[in-house]
Amino acid sequence: MLASRLDAFIITHPPNIFYLTGFSGSSGLVLVTRNGAILFTDPRYTLQARQEVTAAQVKIIRVSLLKAAGEQLERLPVRRVGFEAAHLTVLQKATLSTSAGRQVRWIPWDGNVEGLRVVKDESELVIMREAARIACSSWEETLPLVKPGVTEMDLAAEIEFRMRRKGADGPAFDTIIASGERGAWPHARASRKLVKKNELVVFDLGAILRGYSSDLTRTVCVGRASSEMRRWYGAVLEAQQAARQALHPGVTAEQVDAAARGVLKQAGLERRFIHSTGHGLGLEVHESPRLGRGDQSILRAGTVVTLEPGVYIEGTGGIRIEDDALVTNSGAEFLTHAKRELIEIG
Amino acid sequence: MLASRLDAFIITHPPNIFYLTGFSGSSGLVLVTRNGAILFTDPRYTLQARQEVTAAQVKIIRVSLLKAAGEQLERLPVRRVGFEAAHLTVLQKATLSTSAGRQVRWIPWDGNVEGLRVVKDESELVIMREAARIACSSWEETLPLVKPGVTEMDLAAEIEFRMRRKGADGPAFDTIIASGERGAWPHARASRKLVKKNELVVFDLGAILRGYSSDLTRTVCVGRASSEMRRWYGAVLEAQQAARQALHPGVTAEQVDAAARGVLKQAGLERRFIHSTGHGLGLEVHESPRLGRGDQSILRAGTVVTLEPGVYIEGTGGIRIEDDALVTNSGAEFLTHAKRELIEIG
Repeated sequence: MLASRLDAFIITHPPNIFYLTGFSGSSGLVLVTRNGAILFTDPRYTLQARQEVTAAQVKIIRVSLLKAAGEQLERLPVRRVGFEAAHLTVLQKATLSTSAGRQVRWIPWDGNVEGLRVVKDESELVIMREAARIACSSWEETLPLVKPGVTEMDLAAEIEFRMRRKGADGPAFDTIIASGERGAWPHARASRKLVKKNELVVFDLGAILRGYSSDLTRTVCVGRASSEMRRWYGAVLEAQQAARQALHPGVTAEQVDAAARGVLKQAGLERRFIHSTGHGLGLEVHESPRLGRGDQSILRAGTVVTLEPGVYIEGTGGIRIEDDALVTNSGAEFLTHAKRELIEIG
Repeated sequence: MLASRLDAFIITHPPNIFYLTGFSGSSGLVLVTRNGAILFTDPRYTLQARQEVTAAQVKIIRVSLLKAAGEQLERLPVRRVGFEAAHLTVLQKATLSTSAGRQVRWIPWDGNVEGLRVVKDESELVIMREAARIACSSWEETLPLVKPGVTEMDLAAEIEFRMRRKGADGPAFDTIIASGERGAWPHARASRKLVKKNELVVFDLGAILRGYSSDLTRTVCVGRASSEMRRWYGAVLEAQQAARQALHPGVTAEQVDAAARGVLKQAGLERRFIHSTGHGLGLEVHESPRLGRGDQSILRAGTVVTLEPGVYIEGTGGIRIEDDALVTNSGAEFLTHAKRELIEIG
């Protein structure tokens, strides 16, 4: 705030609100001035805010939170006010500007709370390790149900049920189960398709626990894998290992991506690898940094990222292997421990 | 487009993209000009877009979709371009403006696709009826598990598992299970709390099916309800019936709210009813109209809304009864059919 010469700033992105105040409701806005922080929320969350929030004053607003925050600003001697341009919509910004009046100069002030969130402390890592464990064991327990004739959606149901029973607040994202040809869609949600013999099946799943996400991908073969499938699988696993070895404090995000990409290039599969190697993980499933070309942010100990190279072959399927890795003082450590070698079923 | 004298418009809100093009991926942008529609997406969705999209040209973009759309606009003879101010962030808008150049005048153009979505056609209603049925039967099947000692999260796990097994793509929102005092939080997600004897338990759940949501709330009593609980329950049920009777084509959204609110006022519970009576339901769980004070939109046949009055008593708990109702030519029809009378367990 001082560095940007701000008199106040407004936070509207829910994970940032949770990080700053502990409030987990879906309707909130935080106004921070030199006199402290105020959380604005609506009457549905009165009791929840009182219980969750200690470091901020709580104001219950019956109409627009943005209008109320703007009116509060109008009454204060503030000029330069930061806001999250990456999260506030054009319409929300107009509401805020109108009610705050002309005295306020609005300064885009993005990524500052996200910047704090990049390095996790021990209390966060305890939760993230547990979220990772829940994803892994839920996947492992579902594996015996993978056989010809089961639908992708039934497998998703089993995984999500197990995550819930192990304490997850829910899936971190729409569970992906992509069998056979559908595996060539990197983001194919579980469908009504039946799993068939000699198909690859991609599982991409994660749990939310106390706000924090895990993210795990495994690919199995129903029946014996062809020699080509084995070659692809080996290359993807090797690419992930290369990324894992490249991961340590001081390296840039794109260097980790380059390590994985280099292995797939050598295997002649570079054009099959159509996304980046990974992304930061925490209160959001996708957060900073992005392990891809052009992201030159320098990784620090305490950051958790996914490492998830993959190859996608139209008409045949896909292979992706994804683990969550913590950057440590000396290198990196996986938080997910499910078996990484190719599993052939039946 | 003609009425607003636009040369083109850009749609970025995913449910609107799905409605216009059938594309269900999470990364997309639609540009509509007088020459037709173009869907921009990234390489992860190449195959999916090819399969799902027929009425638009598909462009696969490796970098920013907004930048690509802006560059496309720059090459076209367009001046007035509509955009969704309620969905585009300030930062996204800046990216778009910069790449489109100075020739473009940006016109906030909100609610137009939402306006089309308000009235559902038969093909949509078939799906919404099934989504409603899935929610109801999943709740009914879980009811025998509601007893002292079960956790709220276990009940959520059972409900979500059943919804999945019945064909849902997932829960429409974080399942709410709020027992005892927690019931006084209208939006309390299922927690690790144990259900106890003589508590009210609020269940608020919904299924997503092929993009469309259902939304159901029931409140049960574990043990015998006190006379006060019965009185509250009766008032809430009567309020819902009043809303149901008020619901027909030509009425305003706020009139339906007033009908429910009037009953609770007569019962001396108006101050306990801290939210609006309901909301539109469809490709989003909360969409237009809002059945609350100040919404004067006129309801039309084919619109689906929730009717969900509730009362919340700090220290004791909450009661809410919610059904999904379709406005028909002659009145209204519930899509959800689970028993509405008070259930006492054990």
